[in-house]
Amino acid sequence: MNHAASAVKALAFDVFGTVVDWRGSVAREVAMIAKHMNIQVDALAFADAWRAGYAPAMDRVRKGELPWMHIDSLHRMILDSIVEQFGLGKLNDEQRENLNKVWHRLSPWPDTVAGLHALKKQFTITTLSNGNFSLLTAMAKNAGLPWDCIVSAELFKHYKPDPETYHGVAGLLNLPIEQVMLCASHPSDLRAAKAQGMRTAYVMRPFEFGEHVPLPKVEAGEFDFVAQDFVDLARQLAT
Amino acid sequence: MNHAASAVKALAFDVFGTVVDWRGSVAREVAMIAKHMNIQVDALAFADAWRAGYAPAMDRVRKGELPWMHIDSLHRMILDSIVEQFGLGKLNDEQRENLNKVWHRLSPWPDTVAGLHALKKQFTITTLSNGNFSLLTAMAKNAGLPWDCIVSAELFKHYKPDPETYHGVAGLLNLPIEQVMLCASHPSDLRAAKAQGMRTAYVMRPFEFGEHVPLPKVEAGEFDFVAQDFVDLARQLAT
Repeated sequence: MNHAASAVKALAFDVFGTVVDWRGSVAREVAMIAKHMNIQVDALAFADAWRAGYAPAMDRVRKGELPWMHIDSLHRMILDSIVEQFGLGKLNDEQRENLNKVWHRLSPWPDTVAGLHALKKQFTITTLSNGNFSLLTAMAKNAGLPWDCIVSAELFKHYKPDPETYHGVAGLLNLPIEQVMLCASHPSDLRAAKAQGMRTAYVMRPFEFGEHVPLPKVEAGEFDFVAQDFVDLARQLAT
Repeated sequence: MNHAASAVKALAFDVFGTVVDWRGSVAREVAMIAKHMNIQVDALAFADAWRAGYAPAMDRVRKGELPWMHIDSLHRMILDSIVEQFGLGKLNDEQRENLNKVWHRLSPWPDTVAGLHALKKQFTITTLSNGNFSLLTAMAKNAGLPWDCIVSAELFKHYKPDPETYHGVAGLLNLPIEQVMLCASHPSDLRAAKAQGMRTAYVMRPFEFGEHVPLPKVEAGEFDFVAQDFVDLARQLAT
């Protein structure tokens, strides 16, 4: 076993992109809605546009330009701002609310559930996501994600990459921060966690943004582990 | 289905006594320690004494006489105050710390795991306990309790029966409080939850304090449900 793993007691997972395929899941639901409405919608472009509004909206909360808001509310705000341009302006409030909940129903990657079950045997496994607590709870129930507990940015009223989130998860687990490893497909999240003393595992998700978007660049040795997927991570961490 | 159940979306469980048998679990570990030390200890009386210090210690936190402290810390404070009188004063710091963690290893009642699995099919199931977050997470992992999420008084920096805890769990689940039902073996907890608008299920645990301690008195119709155990509760709530 890698030296870094020997002290790790808990794994904290980024969720959107790392655990679940938001792009494919959102596009599938939007394509079905378009079919029912008998209209043409570029469903993948819609998913990308929805997601593109996410980081700027959170940054407005992080900077204090918006009060603390759930991701559910941020998602709805972004949704309302993009439906017209995609020809979905006719969706009424109930239909938008239902579509907004697609983020509660995102599908796991093929390796996710098996990988988490394997990792759960050795470690405490938790979410550490900007998704709100009820969203993460509903997603776990729907997708069969076997978390030991749900930890959300909502509990700290701070979004990642604010340091409060990384220290917050270690505090709730009552562990020194260096005994907790962030597992994520986004180097920026991992770098912020590393700067606070967390261990880091970079999990490659080459299809998160579509097959034509290259993987982000990472330095050799920058993170404690680099894994192809969760099953590979479990194998690397196995004692 | 009872009318009250039709609107309920989530069940929040008291844990110590309702879900797990703290008295039997603590007594078993203490009896083993006594055997190793080759001394006589009244293990059940020890468990009772430890537990008896719990409510007063929490009340000191609730009244502001003590700063916010984890149950782990309160348990240790009480433990240190009773070891001498039970002949366990020779336990060193490491041994006390290990014994203190018995609260992370409490055994479920015989119906608990099967009942929770049945209830989980219909409802979101969560803890709502004064136990700290890491304690509840460790207990679930150890005992195989299939919670959808872990909610602890620690998240609100308020112990039950403070209203913040009942409103807090509903808020995290993003549900109106009347769609959340507290399931507990302690009428005082249920009454406090009911006063805040929660639904209530009283689960009888006749052996919590030993077989010679009579069940607490409850008024007919005082709570939405009265159940023999979790399997009975699941049957009553079944659609």
